Amino acid sequence: MEAKKKIPITLITGNKKKLEEFMAIMSEDLAAAYDVRSMAIDLDELQGEPEFIASRKAKLATHQVPTPVIVDDVSLCFNALKGLPGPYIKSFLDKIGRQGLVDMLKGFDDKTGYAQCIYAYCESPETEPVVFIGKCDGQIVSPRGENMFGWDPIFLPNGHEQTFAEMDMEVKNKISHRGMAGELIKDFLRQNAERLSEKFNQ
Amino acid sequence: MEAKKKIPITLITGNKKKLEEFMAIMSEDLAAAYDVRSMAIDLDELQGEPEFIASRKAKLATHQVPTPVIVDDVSLCFNALKGLPGPYIKSFLDKIGRQGLVDMLKGFDDKTGYAQCIYAYCESPETEPVVFIGKCDGQIVSPRGENMFGWDPIFLPNGHEQTFAEMDMEVKNKISHRGMAGELIKDFLRQNAERLSEKFNQ
Repeated sequence: MEAKKKIPITLITGNKKKLEEFMAIMSEDLAAAYDVRSMAIDLDELQGEPEFIASRKAKLATHQVPTPVIVDDVSLCFNALKGLPGPYIKSFLDKIGRQGLVDMLKGFDDKTGYAQCIYAYCESPETEPVVFIGKCDGQIVSPRGENMFGWDPIFLPNGHEQTFAEMDMEVKNKISHRGMAGELIKDFLRQNAERLSEKFNQ
Repeated sequence: MEAKKKIPITLITGNKKKLEEFMAIMSEDLAAAYDVRSMAIDLDELQGEPEFIASRKAKLATHQVPTPVIVDDVSLCFNALKGLPGPYIKSFLDKIGRQGLVDMLKGFDDKTGYAQCIYAYCESPETEPVVFIGKCDGQIVSPRGENMFGWDPIFLPNGHEQTFAEMDMEVKNKISHRGMAGELIKDFLRQNAERLSEKFNQ
């Protein structure tokens, strides 16, 4: 009997940190079943709702990659702005910085918001993408914390006294939008290991 | 000698008003040279700088339409937000309305901004798109005016006492971002009429 080939799967990212975070969720049994690669592809970022953006990006990626793919999309959503800047947060952060984002809410009483991470999985150009949404509710506050990663310093998760930038990475991973989306896709990969293994060992 | 065929050109829009506005800039000599059609295609809206979004959209359209195409993209840009919401203005308007947009600037002293219209022309999938940018500087003000078209009620163009929503359509067309982009593409179409006519009469 031949040894079974692992299931190939490609995380679309050129960001080492994102790959590391993803590998951290691939616990032993998953690491035994899946062969995770990463690939940096310049994919179009679409406008629209976060689920739509992630799904379309995953589908687009399958046209360039011969394995199932996973893409991620992160949003920072302000409730006063009905979820915006949301998927456009990177543009806003690049252009007006953290303080600018905080100042955008000055005219509103509601300073609540949520961080959202979506993993979208797509098996091939012929199949529909599946999305896994992790959400973390909190408040938008003046920048605090040494960790200068993106908008972490202005996001204070509910039930905590520290911003994402101030807290231990371990605590953050447990409560974060990315951690939660990771748990969901982990379940999915576990449930689909047998089916995919058969498909890739035909 | 055979009569010359007109040059076919397709404006990508499902919006009658936009087609009318475009036809209004096609003055007699242009109307004699060009056969303007319109087509509603559901094209992906990309994220990015306005010029990039319009160019890519025009190029995408040439894959679905056998004639040269023209697409347009409109932005409302706040200087305090370094040009944002810009191309995302429609999402913002849909979600938080005009007053929400005004309130986003409450935390900033600078209430200036500009309206921008880009026409992008692309001849075929093999050619590079050309963009024509019309810009109108002004202020973001509390909503004023009966004309309930988009964000017109909150945009007060420099040197005028009336918002886009309050002014006569004729005055608006003369000073507006769309009017200016229209003048530019008109010059371009005039300059290219002979070349295109030869191409389409081969």
